[in-house]
Order: sequence, then C-alpha cells, then structure tokens
Amino acid sequence: MKKHRVDLNSDMGEGFGSWTIGDGVDEDIMPLISSANIATGFHAGDPNIMARTVQLAKQAGVGVGAHPGFRDLVGFGRRTLTETPQALVNDIVFQLGALREFARLHDVSVQHVKPHGALYMLAAQDEGLSRLLVETLRRLDPTLLLYCMEASVTYRIARELGQPVVREFYADRDYDRSGSIVFTRRVGKLDPAQVAAKVVRACVEGRVRTVDGEDIEIDFDSVCIHSDTPGALRLVEATRDALVSHDIRVAAPLHAASR
Amino acid sequence: MKKHRVDLNSDMGEGFGSWTIGDGVDEDIMPLISSANIATGFHAGDPNIMARTVQLAKQAGVGVGAHPGFRDLVGFGRRTLTETPQALVNDIVFQLGALREFARLHDVSVQHVKPHGALYMLAAQDEGLSRLLVETLRRLDPTLLLYCMEASVTYRIARELGQPVVREFYADRDYDRSGSIVFTRRVGKLDPAQVAAKVVRACVEGRVRTVDGEDIEIDFDSVCIHSDTPGALRLVEATRDALVSHDIRVAAPLHAASR
Amino acid sequence: MKKHRVDLNSDMGEGFGSWTIGDGVDEDIMPLISSANIATGFHAGDPNIMARTVQLAKQAGVGVGAHPGFRDLVGFGRRTLTETPQALVNDIVFQLGALREFARLHDVSVQHVKPHGALYMLAAQDEGLSRLLVETLRRLDPTLLLYCMEASVTYRIARELGQPVVREFYADRDYDRSGSIVFTRRVGKLDPAQVAAKVVRACVEGRVRTVDGEDIEIDFDSVCIHSDTPGALRLVEATRDALVSHDIRVAAPLHAASR
Amino acid sequence: MKKHRVDLNSDMGEGFGSWTIGDGVDEDIMPLISSANIATGFHAGDPNIMARTVQLAKQAGVGVGAHPGFRDLVGFGRRTLTETPQALVNDIVFQLGALREFARLHDVSVQHVKPHGALYMLAAQDEGLSRLLVETLRRLDPTLLLYCMEASVTYRIARELGQPVVREFYADRDYDRSGSIVFTRRVGKLDPAQVAAKVVRACVEGRVRTVDGEDIEIDFDSVCIHSDTPGALRLVEATRDALVSHDIRVAAPLHAASR
Repeated sequence: MKKHRVDLNSDMGEGFGSWTIGDGVDEDIMPLISSANIATGFHAGDPNIMARTVQLAKQAGVGVGAHPGFRDLVGFGRRTLTETPQALVNDIVFQLGALREFARLHDVSVQHVKPHGALYMLAAQDEGLSRLLVETLRRLDPTLLLYCMEASVTYRIARELGQPVVREFYADRDYDRSGSIVFTRRVGKLDPAQVAAKVVRACVEGRVRTVDGEDIEIDFDSVCIHSDTPGALRLVEATRDALVSHDIRVAAPLHAASR
Repeated sequence: MKKHRVDLNSDMGEGFGSWTIGDGVDEDIMPLISSANIATGFHAGDPNIMARTVQLAKQAGVGVGAHPGFRDLVGFGRRTLTETPQALVNDIVFQLGALREFARLHDVSVQHVKPHGALYMLAAQDEGLSRLLVETLRRLDPTLLLYCMEASVTYRIARELGQPVVREFYADRDYDRSGSIVFTRRVGKLDPAQVAAKVVRACVEGRVRTVDGEDIEIDFDSVCIHSDTPGALRLVEATRDALVSHDIRVAAPLHAASR
Repeated sequence: MKKHRVDLNSDMGEGFGSWTIGDGVDEDIMPLISSANIATGFHAGDPNIMARTVQLAKQAGVGVGAHPGFRDLVGFGRRTLTETPQALVNDIVFQLGALREFARLHDVSVQHVKPHGALYMLAAQDEGLSRLLVETLRRLDPTLLLYCMEASVTYRIARELGQPVVREFYADRDYDRSGSIVFTRRVGKLDPAQVAAKVVRACVEGRVRTVDGEDIEIDFDSVCIHSDTPGALRLVEATRDALVSHDIRVAAPLHAASR
Repeated sequence: MKKHRVDLNSDMGEGFGSWTIGDGVDEDIMPLISSANIATGFHAGDPNIMARTVQLAKQAGVGVGAHPGFRDLVGFGRRTLTETPQALVNDIVFQLGALREFARLHDVSVQHVKPHGALYMLAAQDEGLSRLLVETLRRLDPTLLLYCMEASVTYRIARELGQPVVREFYADRDYDRSGSIVFTRRVGKLDPAQVAAKVVRACVEGRVRTVDGEDIEIDFDSVCIHSDTPGALRLVEATRDALVSHDIRVAAPLHAASR
C-alpha cells in the first residue's frame, strides 16, 4: 500500500522575456524534482526560456513535459476562456510541438503533457475537451503520459481510450471531498514541514485531509509542487527530504512502454 | 538551360483569429501551387488556421513548409526587430515545432522552412543569423529544405554547411542589380499577364529586368507569389497557366534524399 | 409612440495591423451612421486604425464612442474570460483613455462607451461588474453615454446611479423572450429588406419578433448594425433608407446635458 | 552653478500580470523619488498595475509620467523596431491616453512623458520621429514635460518648438563623449556609493566621466535611476541621501506654467 517510489513534478520555465515568477529559482528546483512541466508560451514561457529550461532538465536528468495553457499572458493562464474543445486542443497541439522541437534540438524526448491552470481544471470537468485531447494525443503519440487528477474526467477518458496517465497529488493545494483540488489564482505562504508531512502521509497512508476537515482516500503517481508558490524551493526541499527519509524514492514515472 | 520543372510557392494561412489578409482565398490558391509556406503564429496564423491549412495542403498534395516570422502581429512581420541570432533562431525553432505537430497530426511531413518578411531579409544579409539557423536546422533535420534567394548569405551558408536549399524567384517583387529583391511592406496591384511573362522569361532565358531597367541573370528552383499581393489568385492562375503552356511542370522541389 | 428620431450605431475600426474584418468598409458605412463604436485595441483596433477612424468619424460628423473589449485578439473579444470586476473595469478605463487621446488630438469629444461582444453580454448580467463600471464612469465623466440593452443589469444600474444611457436595438441579432439578444460568435448573411423592416417595425410599433415566434415590446434609442455581419454595408443602407422613408431621422443621441 | 534642487525619476509599474521585474519594489522606491515614469502597457505594465501605480504615486506626492515603449513585451521595449514616425507617435498617443485616464480617475494630472528604452534612444537620434512627437504633444498638451537627454535631437526639437523639456542625467548608465548614454539591454550590479558620488559630482561640478575615461560637461534637470537595475532600491536610497547631505533638494521639476 505504502509507496516506494513517487514522481515529483514542478512547473518550470514560467518567466516571460525579462520577467520571472515566484521566488523559487528553476536552477535550484530542477535537480530536486523528477519531472518538469515546461511552460510553452501561451500563459508563460518564451522560446529562449524554453530552450534554456529543456537544457536544464536534460542536465538534471529530469523528465521533460509540455505545460500548455490558455492564451492569456496577463492572466497567467489562470482565467477560464470559453472556447470550443477543438480550438483548445489545437492550442495544445501547437504548444506541444513547440516544446518537442526544443527537446529534439537537445536530443531528449518529451515524456508528458500537463495542461496548465484553468485549462487543466476545465479539462478535469469537461468530457468533450478531455475526449478530444486524449484522442488527439493517441494520434500524435500513444506513449505520451498525460498528467491529471484521479478525480477528473480527464483520467477516466484517458483510461478508457488507453492513453497512459500519471495521477497527481497536489502538495500545495487544498482538497475538497470529491478528491479534486480547490482551484485558486494565488496561493499564500505555506509551512514546508506541514507540506512535507501531508505528502508523506498521502504516500504512506493514502489519505489527505480536506478543507472540510475530514479525511479522504487518495491515490496518485506524482506529487506536484508549484514553483510560483511562495517559498517553493523550501517546499520542494522539505518534501524531497521527507520522502527520502521515509524510503520513498523520487523518480520519473515509468513510461507506458515499460509498464 | 530552360527549366522543365519549377516549384510554385505561396504564403498560406496568414489570417489571425477572425481576420483574413489579402483577397486571394487559400482554398482557391492551394490547388494551383506546389509548396505552401504556412504562417506559424508569430506574425500571422494561429493554431486553428494552421490545423486547417495543413489539412488543405495535404488534400491538394502540396508540400508543407513552416513560415516563421518576427513576433510582431501588428506589423505582420514586416518590421525589423534588433535581436540576437540565438533568440531569433529560438523563435524559428518554436514555430517550426508548432507546425510540425500539426503535420504529424495529419500524417504529412514538413518539407521546408522559409523565414517570413523582414526576418527573411535580415537572414539574407546577416551571416551570424544565417549560420546559426543553418547549423540548427542541420541538428534538427538535415533533409529540411531551406528557401532563400541565391543572392543571399543564407544561400551561401546553407551550401557551405550542406543543408539542402531551394532558391526562389519573386514574381511579385522588384529586383535590384545584386539579384536581391527590393523589400517593401505593401505591394500594389500587378498585371497578371506581365507577372506571368516575367516568370516565364526567367524560367526560359534565366533573366529578369531590374528596377534600374537592365537585365541580370537569375537562377532559381521555385517561384514565389505572395497571397497577400492584391489580386493574388489571378497572378497565380496566370503564372501557372503560362508555365504549363511553355511545358514547364509545376511541382514541389525534389527532396535532398532523392536528389 | 412612433419614433421621429433614432441613433444608428456601428462598430468601426475593427481591423488589426494589416488585417481587416467584415466586407463592409468603414469608409462607406461611416457617412450612413450617427454613432461609431471604435475598437480600442484589446479585441481589435490598433493606434493607427484608431487615429484614422476618429478622423473618419469627425469628417462624417458622427459621434465617437469607445468600444472596449476583453483582451483577446485571437477570439475577437467574443469569448468570455473569468475575471474580477475591478480588473475588467481597469481594462475599460485603459481603453477609454487611449481613444480619448485620439479624440483630443482631433479636437472632438468622446460621446459614449459601449463594451464589446462577450464583455457587453457579461456586464448585461453581472451586477457587480455593471455597478463598478457605472460608478467609475460617473467619476471619470458623468456625461458619457453608456450604450446597453434595456433588458440588462447595466441599464438598471446606470439609471439608478444617474449615468446617461442609450438603449440599443439590434437589427442583426435575434431576440429572446426576455428582450435580450441571443449572443453568437458568428452571424450568417441576412436579407437587407427584412432587417430594415424589422427596424422600422420596432421604431413604429415598438415590437420585435423573438426566436420563439412571438412578439415582445421593445424600447430603445439607437439601432445597432455590426460592421462584421456579412453584407453589412447593404444592411446599413437599407435600414437608413427605410428609416428616412418613414420620416424617422437618423441622428446621434442627445447628450445628457441637453436632455 | 551647483544645483540646489534636482528631480529624481524612476520607472515604475514595470510588471505585467503576475510578473515583476527587478528587485527594487515600487512601494519602497516611490517615496524616495519625485517623478515616476509609469509603464503604459506596450513594453510592460497592464491596467491593474497602472491603476495601482498611479495611486501609489499620488499617495507619495510624486509626479506622474507616461512611459510609453515599443509594442514588445517579450523584449521589454529594449529592441528597436523599424517603423514610421507616424505609427510610433500613434503608439505613444495611445499609451499616454491610457495613463491619463487612470490619472483622471485618481484626480491627478499627468506631469510628463518619457519614451522608454529603445524608443527613447531612437527618438534621441531620429529627427522625423522627435519632430512629430513634439508637434503632437504641443497639440495635445503644451504644458506636458518631455524627458530627454540634452545631447539628443529630441531636446533640440522640443526647444525649437517650445515644448517644455526635462533633461536627464543617468545615474546607472555609462556616458560616451557625445554626452549620450551607451544603450544596453541589461545592466549589472552597481555600487551605491559610486553611483551616488557620480550623481553628486554631476550636480555640483556639472561633469561626468565617460567610458573613455575623460570628463565631459553635462547639464540636466533630473536624475534617472532604473528600477530594474539590480539593487535599485539601494541605489536610489544612497543617491537621495547623498543629494540631501549636499543640500540638494529632491523635487519634481517646475511645470512650464510656473517657470
């Protein structure tokens, strides 16, 4: 029941031009995680940053993932846009391809796709969007891992159609009774020890406390800590240390091919 | 000396959102050309248009090319931006990858790359940019055709480094004595018969009249007609008809592998 | 009961860079209307187009209005963005000011504000947004006319707080039983005679047929015809002609000061 | 000869959406300066940030200025764009108006205009651009102060046409022999004591050392310290303290009307 291995993912490359976000520096966080969700230009990220971040991930031996969002720089992809599934999937295809080209340049492959922010939350609830996304990923690359919550439509559809999924646990977000996270546009400062303890408990007991104060069961393959959460580096360090001291290895998810 | 075969290329998918450009409709022009330079989002084009245009090219059996430009929607990529070669090549890699993903989705391969507008003209004169671009293309895909003018640094570097090139003849632009085109941000209405005659003469005699009124020798593999030139559809029709009636076949360039 | 005077408004300046929208040319439509809603850059319009359009309106003696939208060029402001009222009102303040500066340059004053597309429809239903917008307009300029539907929260709040309003009748949109228009992202081709008859009937009888086939009462001060509706110029011409032949004068709304 | 009063200006509000720039926080720098150049959205700044920054300036009793740049978020307005003077002046008019509306909302007036980055440097050398800008400002508001270097075409034209100017001294940039600054896209960390000493010397002796190691005479009305220069807050503090201890009062420039 207790996990012996878990993926640790974080959003990387979320600057734009001269701008940076969060106080956790990518260079410091990258060596501590096992999978990087690299911003692909619509909500954050630009070609220079993408090139640099792919290289950073490669050097650290970290799995490279595309992190496509709504086309909304000023809103950082955290505002929902009413749009058809087809148009949103086209946005994702565009962004995935852009990242893949930098991956090709650095001779690594793209391990996964994880929609960002409001797009991730929309897909989690919207069957039409999730279905078209999964069908499209199957045509593009049936081994590409899709990151999502177990308590999401995305997960159900990916399982139904056979696309490999990675279920996430959110270390720095609150859960509701349904096992879904409570979406927020800004997160306050969190205590690293508490975050680490929450993750370890979820890995060992398979439980998490909800915003209502009760426990729910939760299962997952990867722990997500957002790099723009204030004090992100400390959260990642504390979580990684706690996992290691509980004999839980931090490692990228096994690819579909090898499962 | 006289050509028996020539490529005919045009810029396709140059709308953005609800906006269109030019009075030549892509649907009408596509079946008449052999290679399509598809706008990749920085100066024109968006994911929906790219998806549709790749599909259109596939249906017409037309070679698919990436047409990356400066990040300048309002200026349609016809303004020069001072930027380092590395940043510009990263912009091109990003855009090439985005198009490639749509090509993969429709099970076609990307035949060529042709920088757009002011970026094409900058590369034509800037050795650092052309060299880094060609080196990067060699790493990404040594069979990808690079469209350029013979009278350009880009051509010289591509030949030197071994990347396959397609030399262009501009049916709807004026030439100077150096064999380079006179760059302009807007082109007036042209006479289809004159344009067709200019192309045929270039194909048969290898000569073109410059803005100074003298003839220069010119060699090329592909004829370009811009789809945003007023009356573009008539120019393409007239040119194609004239080529055919002179026994010059319109066909995509042979790939490096098959040459 | 029958109107003897009505405003005729249309969206103007909705291009971007080299791109145009609709087949109705602003130069042709401007002299036929009495109020112009000028796109202010977030969903359409750019500084060059705004300068030109203000000048065009001035020459035609047409009232100049700001037409601010969501920050969404690719979606032409027809997609809803989840955002706080404060941020949306800041967007409107920004865009209003930009237009006002061009008006100042051409020595005309800004007559009105009309939110565009999805932002107009959101305000129509969102009390918080309408209230903050109206309060802000009162601080900025208590004589600025606010265009809205009578069947909207915006209208109710503007009346309550005392900001002068202009109620619109949509010639090229369908009505539901509530007296609100059925929002759509694209409109098909309409018959000019039918559109003109619908407007005349609304002006003379105060009635319009809904999508359900029944008549509702409707009152308004201005008739709107969108310039991006296919065949817009013909719709405007037919409507204006029909109004004139029924002795209904087309003229900009009287300013608050003069009412 | 020695100054008894000098303006101290800094660029404020240079974030975008969730992104910030520099390590100097606006809230800390604002009370130390006398004039704020507020980013107006094209190279940095957005409506929310503009609203907040105008309010901050008002609270601190700091002069509010528009800081318009090239439309280039990713390049932070530090890349030159080839464009006609008319289009660039339209960009400036747009941005100036946007800021003015927030100033109106907070019941302050806009004191000055200062083009940003590459646009400032282009205007400094381009007579056509400077002339059209100054002519346009004269039509819009003949009391609006224009910030520029004495060694610039902008200064010469503004004096010729009668627009009031404020000549700047750049505390955190290097000078060449012509009295112009050496433009750079990124500045390294500077020593606060050295910067302060350079400013005091310029105020007391009217001299500055150039990159060539020789002294030139320099005259100015305002000292500029960029808020995105690393350690900006310390530079501003040290400079202000040094000025005060040399009996040089930091105060906004006198308006044209009162001179």
